[in-house]
Amino acid sequence: MPHLTIEYSRNLEAGFALAETLREVNATLVASGQIRNEPDLKSRIVPLDETVVGTGLGDRGFVYCLLRLLPGRSDAVKAEMSERIAVVMRKRIPQPAGMMVQLSVEVIEMHAPSYVKEVLAA
Amino acid sequence: MPHLTIEYSRNLEAGFALAETLREVNATLVASGQIRNEPDLKSRIVPLDETVVGTGLGDRGFVYCLLRLLPGRSDAVKAEMSERIAVVMRKRIPQPAGMMVQLSVEVIEMHAPSYVKEVLAA
Amino acid sequence: MPHLTIEYSRNLEAGFALAETLREVNATLVASGQIRNEPDLKSRIVPLDETVVGTGLGDRGFVYCLLRLLPGRSDAVKAEMSERIAVVMRKRIPQPAGMMVQLSVEVIEMHAPSYVKEVLAA
Repeated sequence: MPHLTIEYSRNLEAGFALAETLREVNATLVASGQIRNEPDLKSRIVPLDETVVGTGLGDRGFVYCLLRLLPGRSDAVKAEMSERIAVVMRKRIPQPAGMMVQLSVEVIEMHAPSYVKEVLAA
Repeated sequence: MPHLTIEYSRNLEAGFALAETLREVNATLVASGQIRNEPDLKSRIVPLDETVVGTGLGDRGFVYCLLRLLPGRSDAVKAEMSERIAVVMRKRIPQPAGMMVQLSVEVIEMHAPSYVKEVLAA
Repeated sequence: MPHLTIEYSRNLEAGFALAETLREVNATLVASGQIRNEPDLKSRIVPLDETVVGTGLGDRGFVYCLLRLLPGRSDAVKAEMSERIAVVMRKRIPQPAGMMVQLSVEVIEMHAPSYVKEVLAA
């Protein structure tokens, strides 16, 4: 069931191995034991063409990761999931010279009573 | 007021009639009687260029639909809205041979006290 | 910490000064005094290629602004943040002749216990 969305400002794209990053994040999330079946985890990484960070001058970039889970985990488990994502991202996000790069990660709950989830019949 | 976002992995794009799908989803949501004025419903469908599903091998695709409503509906009504979306999507999502395709639909509430909504003066 | 996402339907792109709009929104949000350090505010504006508004005929466009804040502000403060965004957007959004253009703005809270936020070491 979980959905992961990673957004990154386009000024970070040089040398950012997108598919490898997603595979590595998926692997550590599945290894947490919190995801029942591995295909339940659906991840995407999305470039942002037009971004502005704050009001100051200078090159600035950012990456924002949002994991959506069904309810039922404690805050401690959610924080552990965030940290698993952050560990991969710290290693994978390019650091262009002179650029301030910010990382943020958040875990939120989905709305279980309305949630439809199915594998379409082939 | 409602906002609908449909995301789909790019490997599903062949034969996916995007505008027709949105029109059909909008029609069934308006037919539910839950949307006061039909132009309140604002829908978009967005391709995802870079996706990874789980950790296994094989072709995998997915579609994720998120409907945002103002508060005031029961969970049963929200589940009915999800199911209306799902009915259209099951019919419209392409099924490439050999690909595992997942559909998910979720309905969440917007934050009413901060919500600004207006038609701009022409 | 705050994240701002502005989505706009592609039929509004002619004459829409994207970077200037983001800079002006960031400036008014920082001026609110609600953002501790100006680089905490990370904003993006994103075009939507495929949109459908309601079920009626005629040209229709929309802009949707979502501000994510950490918890701790009253609804009144959130509404003030929405209004600050709306003031800029009313001025900046193009109004093509004959098109119904809708603006919506929403402020939601992030999940603090799972939130990771850091400046990556250069």
